[in-house]
Amino acid sequence: MTMANLPFISLADAEPPFYAGIDLGGTNIKCGIVDNRGRPLSYLTTQTCIELGPEQGAQRMAEATGQAALDAGLKMSQIARVGLATPGTMDIPRGILLNPVNLPGWENFPIRDRVAQHTGRPVAYANDANAAAYGEFWVGSGVHHCSMIMLTLGTGVGGGIIVDGHTIDGENSHGSECGHIIVDSRDDARLCSCGHTGHLEAYASATSVARRTQEALSSGHPSSLNRCQEEGLEVTALRVHQAAESGDELALEIILETARYLGIGITTLLHTIDPAAVVLGGAMNFGGVENRIGKRFLEAVRQEVARRAFPVISAHVQIGFASLGGNAGYIGAAGIAKKQEELS
Amino acid sequence: MTMANLPFISLADAEPPFYAGIDLGGTNIKCGIVDNRGRPLSYLTTQTCIELGPEQGAQRMAEATGQAALDAGLKMSQIARVGLATPGTMDIPRGILLNPVNLPGWENFPIRDRVAQHTGRPVAYANDANAAAYGEFWVGSGVHHCSMIMLTLGTGVGGGIIVDGHTIDGENSHGSECGHIIVDSRDDARLCSCGHTGHLEAYASATSVARRTQEALSSGHPSSLNRCQEEGLEVTALRVHQAAESGDELALEIILETARYLGIGITTLLHTIDPAAVVLGGAMNFGGVENRIGKRFLEAVRQEVARRAFPVISAHVQIGFASLGGNAGYIGAAGIAKKQEELS
Repeated sequence: MTMANLPFISLADAEPPFYAGIDLGGTNIKCGIVDNRGRPLSYLTTQTCIELGPEQGAQRMAEATGQAALDAGLKMSQIARVGLATPGTMDIPRGILLNPVNLPGWENFPIRDRVAQHTGRPVAYANDANAAAYGEFWVGSGVHHCSMIMLTLGTGVGGGIIVDGHTIDGENSHGSECGHIIVDSRDDARLCSCGHTGHLEAYASATSVARRTQEALSSGHPSSLNRCQEEGLEVTALRVHQAAESGDELALEIILETARYLGIGITTLLHTIDPAAVVLGGAMNFGGVENRIGKRFLEAVRQEVARRAFPVISAHVQIGFASLGGNAGYIGAAGIAKKQEELS
Repeated sequence: MTMANLPFISLADAEPPFYAGIDLGGTNIKCGIVDNRGRPLSYLTTQTCIELGPEQGAQRMAEATGQAALDAGLKMSQIARVGLATPGTMDIPRGILLNPVNLPGWENFPIRDRVAQHTGRPVAYANDANAAAYGEFWVGSGVHHCSMIMLTLGTGVGGGIIVDGHTIDGENSHGSECGHIIVDSRDDARLCSCGHTGHLEAYASATSVARRTQEALSSGHPSSLNRCQEEGLEVTALRVHQAAESGDELALEIILETARYLGIGITTLLHTIDPAAVVLGGAMNFGGVENRIGKRFLEAVRQEVARRAFPVISAHVQIGFASLGGNAGYIGAAGIAKKQEELS
């Protein structure tokens, strides 16, 4: 995921209280300190080292948090609360990692309380996609809105929904799984990574972009991407984007088709939630709004929504790209910690 | 819509404060007084008389509320707050009926404030489907849960979503329009009453049941319902239900197909909201859970959800019929008034 270059604020300019945010992924732990207004004072990343197991993981996260606090010029005791975001499956109320696909060996681990023990601070626990959405909502692309949906386009399609300032976590910690809404109900619909068919993720993820391109190439479509096969290179969403930039028609059509599927899924979400904004995050942003292809992609999403959604909704909803990049997760986790403190 | 026979509670047994609820429809105004625990003390219904216009309508609603208060043994000044539920389109924050399809001539009318003037009480304004959902959530089938989705199966498919005790009203008062989530994204999908294609309502409403049956009959399917055509009777969802009760195979298949479409839509909603319960309300309940066909219908909905949703969700979510019948709207409106008072 792209890291947007967020400027750090100095301790002198920051507004207390301070919060730490941790974004735990299968590869890296991201950790940062933010002030009361969500402005980062420090940030660091360290490898997750899955193989060392969750007990050491919790300790390493606490150490990273302590280092981030030091980098910000703060002692750990000056951190009001820690926000911890992890992938699922999880039990948010109990603070437990259940069966996280990307963290093998970390099953059924009471991660919230262990991080709390090691940091000595209260820990708020959140789903990573919801935390990223909350970050964008708090200080990113959703900052001017009261409600927002974020879709994270990467290997899969993640989702986060915020209504009246609260994330929708769900009764089974499975709320806001927007990648798994059904966009194709036919029996022969595409297979999703979750094992079911017809989900948005099976059509709008980077994985799906690569797969659909591969299928088109295999069926003989002319494209500059055929050289990938010849050169033994994997077809990826990034290469599809690059080919589209170079004028490849198939690549562009695949990207616009992806936008249309997204538009279908977004329409369903709009008619369910009616949010002020939809924010598209994740690595697959086709260069973002500054890029010719990114712009066409976004326009095609908006067109499909305009074609399918209630006019009053499509006229008002703001659909755009995320602005915090890979910072959204730890900032959002810190924001959820702040919210939890205010409610406690 | 069926009116469940709710027992009235006497004033002596009731717990103050008291709330009035008004459920405005195209045909009738329903009005009742409930106590602090949502138990009705009185109920009455009067014709809407659309042709008299909204100014008189507001006055008539206030008169009905005053009468309901009297019937309960209360003066209007003893009613803490009034809840008013109307069909859309509407502007909930501003309290305005915008362009209600079922109330021609009542466009752009400040209905909340007019009812407040005529009753002399503060009025909380809500969408009728959300109010019905809130009624079931407060004292009906959702009473033991923290979150709930209600689908109202009638001429259309209405929806109401409650998360952490709050209805999702949306930025444009278009939240929880569950009938308009997309279950079939093909270009030749069925046309919805809203003018778009592939929406849940186009597959799972009573109108759709009648239409799909009619289509099957026209294409030569054997069925006892062919006599409708011969006798010049309209095919309705009720007649389809009756035919299924009498062993008609086509009728049963249409009902089970409806359940499968509902299961698709419900799966999408479950993956978005992850609620504790899904409640099916509205006139089209195939006799409810006490009825052989109603039971098979519900079972088929659950099966489709089990086939399509995350196992942890389908294992935990409670899917059942509503229990308040036509009382849900005014009770829910009163409940929203109570909630608004508590938050004010």
